[in-house]
Amino acid sequence: MAASPAIDAARVIADLRELDRRTGGEGGAQRVCWGDVWREARDFLGELLAEIDLAPDRDEAGNLWAYLPGEADPALALGSHTDSVPNGGWLDGAYGVMAALGVLRAWSTGGGKPPRTLALVDWADEEGARFGRSLFGSSAFAGSLRVDDVRELRDAEGAALPEVLAENDVELGRVLDAGSRRGRLAAYLELHIEQGPVLEREGIPTAAVAGCVGIERHRFRISGQAAHAGTTPMELRRDAGLAAADAALRIEAIGREHDGMATTGVLRLEPGIPTAVAGEAELIADLRQADPGELAAMLTEVRAVVSDAAEARECGSEADVIWRIDPIPFDDDLVIAARAACAQVSGTDRQLTSGALHDAAEVARLMPAAMVFCPSIDGLSHAKEENTSDEDLAAGIEAFGALANRLLANGEPLA
Amino acid sequence: MAASPAIDAARVIADLRELDRRTGGEGGAQRVCWGDVWREARDFLGELLAEIDLAPDRDEAGNLWAYLPGEADPALALGSHTDSVPNGGWLDGAYGVMAALGVLRAWSTGGGKPPRTLALVDWADEEGARFGRSLFGSSAFAGSLRVDDVRELRDAEGAALPEVLAENDVELGRVLDAGSRRGRLAAYLELHIEQGPVLEREGIPTAAVAGCVGIERHRFRISGQAAHAGTTPMELRRDAGLAAADAALRIEAIGREHDGMATTGVLRLEPGIPTAVAGEAELIADLRQADPGELAAMLTEVRAVVSDAAEARECGSEADVIWRIDPIPFDDDLVIAARAACAQVSGTDRQLTSGALHDAAEVARLMPAAMVFCPSIDGLSHAKEENTSDEDLAAGIEAFGALANRLLANGEPLA
Repeated sequence: MAASPAIDAARVIADLRELDRRTGGEGGAQRVCWGDVWREARDFLGELLAEIDLAPDRDEAGNLWAYLPGEADPALALGSHTDSVPNGGWLDGAYGVMAALGVLRAWSTGGGKPPRTLALVDWADEEGARFGRSLFGSSAFAGSLRVDDVRELRDAEGAALPEVLAENDVELGRVLDAGSRRGRLAAYLELHIEQGPVLEREGIPTAAVAGCVGIERHRFRISGQAAHAGTTPMELRRDAGLAAADAALRIEAIGREHDGMATTGVLRLEPGIPTAVAGEAELIADLRQADPGELAAMLTEVRAVVSDAAEARECGSEADVIWRIDPIPFDDDLVIAARAACAQVSGTDRQLTSGALHDAAEVARLMPAAMVFCPSIDGLSHAKEENTSDEDLAAGIEAFGALANRLLANGEPLA
Repeated sequence: MAASPAIDAARVIADLRELDRRTGGEGGAQRVCWGDVWREARDFLGELLAEIDLAPDRDEAGNLWAYLPGEADPALALGSHTDSVPNGGWLDGAYGVMAALGVLRAWSTGGGKPPRTLALVDWADEEGARFGRSLFGSSAFAGSLRVDDVRELRDAEGAALPEVLAENDVELGRVLDAGSRRGRLAAYLELHIEQGPVLEREGIPTAAVAGCVGIERHRFRISGQAAHAGTTPMELRRDAGLAAADAALRIEAIGREHDGMATTGVLRLEPGIPTAVAGEAELIADLRQADPGELAAMLTEVRAVVSDAAEARECGSEADVIWRIDPIPFDDDLVIAARAACAQVSGTDRQLTSGALHDAAEVARLMPAAMVFCPSIDGLSHAKEENTSDEDLAAGIEAFGALANRLLANGEPLA
């Protein structure tokens, strides 16, 4: 078996900067999936693969694959996504794809044939920025995508998803066939920026990700009585806006009590004018927790406090689910290996649960998967200000490379 | 001196129904000032005046006047406004104009020459529905309108106020000349629906109005940090939306504690999406109280709680005044006379402060003024559902007629 070659982090960062030069710039990343700039990003990825004599290959869902054959199969897959939100950050997604390429490049140029085949994957439409459906390509691969749920989706200009897919040579009716590649893979690793402030606050350059939180996203409509701000005494009001305000504060407390996250980023009033008591209010609660029992308890309590807050002001309330997903824990052995790789590179041993979803969550339904995070400056992401110091970027890349090499060197836990 | 003739309430109600038939109907009143339907309403008023051999006369601000000469001058003025909000109620404004006409009709047809000249006035653009400037005609008459403040106003279609006024033969630069008629008037009386739920709840068909509340309307902008709902732990958030929610609940408490009204009908979040902590929030507080000291105290406390609520979440806050008006008490003697007239008609003795503004508030800056209210069913107004029982409408009209006759019969307090 060949010696494990070290990943060239400086080259990976240089590739990211060149990608940003070609597909981003002043206004931020513009690699929205299924569009011209995203295709340019993939063209650049194709150029980089060609440097090491690899050619990309696409599956039925538009995911891009490249394989560096090894001594054994199935493959160890490494990847993330090149697509971005509009005016997004240069690192979100691209960081993991370029690092995956860095691992293939290290073996291809300096390590000889790897002990196990390496697969690079660039998942299609992780962000769902155009049609509102995140994790499109990875969920098609995992078989969790329900084609009928997305068939009618249209973008802001009214273009239909099936037509836009067809422009990219993807046939909606066949996207689940991407799952036929599952058998070629043994495990999946992904490097990503944290997109939150935790690691920066703690001064930790690399960390293992233990899994992704579950999410309960629910809409509450509170109905009171619109009334004149000047002629309706306080004691005769049925103010739906104040009921929603009360509920929002109590939802926050539920998030804290359960060590989860509870966000009320939407609070809309009707009629929404200065001279009228709000007759209607819409409140959306987004609840996240890694533990399924805690998440369920949060939801039960949130429903109760909204109902209570509405009744306290003689308002009615209705709830409907917008979206939900169960918590997805990553593979214990891979998480331990990821912690060891991070400790090796940065001397720190930290694991955290991702509060955002990633393609790895979809893949983890099928096979062992794990992730490595590096810090985000000020916790910012999905914005042109998204950034990470070169030092932390390099640490993350090196930890990811070390993790891949650990798994390649040790048949377990890929057996 | 002639005997005081009783007003014909049934005829006044019939006139109102005919006005509604001509200018309102299923969708509600459409007498938005400066438009065709409003002009049709005034044409109808002209027809009714012609029946008693009076011709309308307009001042420089577009207010419509008619004078029934009496034994003495200056005149006792009676009026309200024919204009309405879009899809508004059939009674708001028109009720008082038709009742004023009823008083002139009673004297003209059955009472001989009144002891004092009677002036009917239909104020222009009380609602401000098209350009957002309420009490246009009455404030021009009172001299409180600042022409430079309204010169740049445009309607929703972009039409400029000065041009729309010109279509109605009103020259903006001359509207304050309407004040030259002030000397012709001794006092002003106005009948109006309450537009709130108080009288209906108390079962009182007519009441005297002691004055209009003062209003402090202020906008607060709270600045925190927009952040990802999944990657930002609760303890690291600077949630501007929750700061605004907290402030709104505390503003409500201030309204109750000061026996005033405090409304937060506008609460807007940015970015306002389910997956982001709100980085910015806009909150508008509308505060009303009849006592100037209480109103000032409310404003001081509201500013403090917004600032506190923001600081508690490490947010900044800024405030700016949108609009303010001092409380306007009506003339003590006229209010006493109005209570006596209401007691005479309905056997109840109640006075209340109007939480909405009326033309009478502008006129009260110059001369003794008072108002009479009748109930609004369910407190509704500015909506097609606005209504009052025929019995209560008649009681209000009769109390208003009795009040006018009291003042005509007794030189005081008009001397």
